[in-house]
Amino acid sequence: MSYWKTHIPLGVQDFLPDEHYNKLNIEAVARDIFSSWGYLEVGPPSLEYFDVFYEGKLSIEQEKMFKFCEPGNRILVLRPDFTMPIARIVATKLKDEMLPIRLSYIGNVYRYEEFQSGKQREIAQAGIELMGVKGAEADAEVIAIAIETIKSLGLSGFQIDIGQVEFYKGLIKECGLNEEQSDKLTKLIDNKNMLALEFFLNGLNVAEELKRPFMKLPLLYGDINMLEEARNIANNPQSERAIDNLYAVYEILEDYGLSNHITFDLGMVHSINYYTGIIFRGITHDIGYPICGGGRYDNLVSEFGYDIPSTGFALGIKRLLIALERQSKLLAKPNIDILVVFDEDSRKEGYAYIQKLRNKGKSVEQFLLDADLKDIKEYAKSKSINKIVNIKDGNVEEMII
Amino acid sequence: MSYWKTHIPLGVQDFLPDEHYNKLNIEAVARDIFSSWGYLEVGPPSLEYFDVFYEGKLSIEQEKMFKFCEPGNRILVLRPDFTMPIARIVATKLKDEMLPIRLSYIGNVYRYEEFQSGKQREIAQAGIELMGVKGAEADAEVIAIAIETIKSLGLSGFQIDIGQVEFYKGLIKECGLNEEQSDKLTKLIDNKNMLALEFFLNGLNVAEELKRPFMKLPLLYGDINMLEEARNIANNPQSERAIDNLYAVYEILEDYGLSNHITFDLGMVHSINYYTGIIFRGITHDIGYPICGGGRYDNLVSEFGYDIPSTGFALGIKRLLIALERQSKLLAKPNIDILVVFDEDSRKEGYAYIQKLRNKGKSVEQFLLDADLKDIKEYAKSKSINKIVNIKDGNVEEMII
Repeated sequence: MSYWKTHIPLGVQDFLPDEHYNKLNIEAVARDIFSSWGYLEVGPPSLEYFDVFYEGKLSIEQEKMFKFCEPGNRILVLRPDFTMPIARIVATKLKDEMLPIRLSYIGNVYRYEEFQSGKQREIAQAGIELMGVKGAEADAEVIAIAIETIKSLGLSGFQIDIGQVEFYKGLIKECGLNEEQSDKLTKLIDNKNMLALEFFLNGLNVAEELKRPFMKLPLLYGDINMLEEARNIANNPQSERAIDNLYAVYEILEDYGLSNHITFDLGMVHSINYYTGIIFRGITHDIGYPICGGGRYDNLVSEFGYDIPSTGFALGIKRLLIALERQSKLLAKPNIDILVVFDEDSRKEGYAYIQKLRNKGKSVEQFLLDADLKDIKEYAKSKSINKIVNIKDGNVEEMII
Repeated sequence: MSYWKTHIPLGVQDFLPDEHYNKLNIEAVARDIFSSWGYLEVGPPSLEYFDVFYEGKLSIEQEKMFKFCEPGNRILVLRPDFTMPIARIVATKLKDEMLPIRLSYIGNVYRYEEFQSGKQREIAQAGIELMGVKGAEADAEVIAIAIETIKSLGLSGFQIDIGQVEFYKGLIKECGLNEEQSDKLTKLIDNKNMLALEFFLNGLNVAEELKRPFMKLPLLYGDINMLEEARNIANNPQSERAIDNLYAVYEILEDYGLSNHITFDLGMVHSINYYTGIIFRGITHDIGYPICGGGRYDNLVSEFGYDIPSTGFALGIKRLLIALERQSKLLAKPNIDILVVFDEDSRKEGYAYIQKLRNKGKSVEQFLLDADLKDIKEYAKSKSINKIVNIKDGNVEEMII
């Protein structure tokens, strides 16, 4: 037998019963909350045309997608993202519905990530998209749902970091940087690489007072009071509107009683092509990767031929599992309630007895008693089953072990 | 925009809210029943090494698998089947557990099928594996769970066709056919192609009385009484044991009160390499494909280095959806219960009001009232929301529409 016959590839995993039980619980909690907010769940396919994710201005890196390339066929990919398929669905199959459209999803996305701790290639997500509404109210709704879901899972000590990509885009525009320059700048800021950032800015032929905000950007991190400082360093209308939007979102979350979970980070500038407003991620000290992420993406659905604004987020289920484990908050999978054994002559009676228990919500393993009762007891012990019922010659004998 | 940006490949589908709701319902019903019988759910990855499904004697056709081939890497495939990954898990990660091991799963498998009505390439399944037990009792348990699940979904007029591949293997062995001959014979019988079957048998250098049973095989279809006829045409111990096993399974299902769903089909000879005992499928007149299938596969887990017998089955969720639809038994997705609108000044109060409703299990869509109330009413109507609550200037006004 080869090594590969009994092993699994890097970046994927077997969910065994205990962990799978917790995974299903996270999915059930998310599903309940999304549904209580009026979101309808959809299920796009795992296999899509490459074009869905690659054609147009907003695309996912080829290198990160799992691709099926066959002569004579279009390239197919494993869905690397849920938002684009849902944008496709809304633009093609739900165009007649009144706006807003509230949709949710639970499933896997697939990304070819360099494998390291926490980076999976099959990534279980649960998320929502709120489509067809502009404005802070919709952004706050999405963030509120993220917070309510994480709270419902029992995770403590988490916060939502909110950024606003328009703040940064306003600064870039003022400087008149070209695409290559702004891409380079974005990377340096996202990595908070101050030394390289200073060196890069020094090399730019741009007025000093326009450069200065970029040096401050990686430090524009903190609570609501930080936003005043941000407003002072930006003197263009786009950046100012971005700050106004952040204040508005915060105010709404304050009314919701959720603002204690909010911090701001204007240096969060990744995916600035994709996002067009707020951008956020959920973080906890228990794990070095965000447990959720989202933001506003007003230019995406139009790529599929339907020009409506949108905002949304996704939870990373495996990361939540890790964070919950580190806080010792994983649930114990319930034991099987009862083990019922019967002899052949009592089978009819035994089955009726068992089905009554099952209909009452009990989980029951059943055995034909052809083995020694001692072995049955040992089996029950090994599975932490505390009750055995032995049905024999018409007698029902209960044993608590 | 290209055609492919807004379309999906053959053999996959978008589950929109109404159908997705029913899909989730089938999954929830199956999950409940599997759990009530003491089965623990596991989640193997969607991406596995090709070797898992191809190395060894029991393999899945290369041509049917979705393969990722990249220079320098092992071939990966999209899981074409759940039973083999679960056999892998049991043989490598659950070998210390006492037997039997009862496992369940819910998820997709992927097969490159020629696309025709009912043949999907992404196939949603829910199923169980009962590992480590031989005998009719285990086979009957698996069939009983299949019946109980389908009954719980409200589907009527279905039956479980049971075959026994050992009956056929006994006949083949008696004739001393080689592999090529028996493969050819298997296809002719499976297709119930009587004319070609007769022609093929005439060409074989085998005693007449050994050939005769094969001509009768496609006709060995019917209720329990047919088994007597089957016993009469087979005069070898392997075939006779197979008939005894079918009687035993039937007797148990009779005790369970489920035998009214059972028919027998000894011409069911597909997958005879894989299966080693009973083989069954669930059929209904509403759809031309089986809604579930399973059987005993005692030689599979040993391919992964752990020699234990096993039996199991899987439901085809999409096919169940089609059958339920044809019987007008799909569930209506519940409407959103309430639409709550509030003005900015009532946001805090409004949110508290809404959260109370949500905590009571109501689904509530919320809006900031910046639009005309007439538009809000029209939106509610379009989504069949029957109740609007308008919170304004501290007043709560309920409207039934």
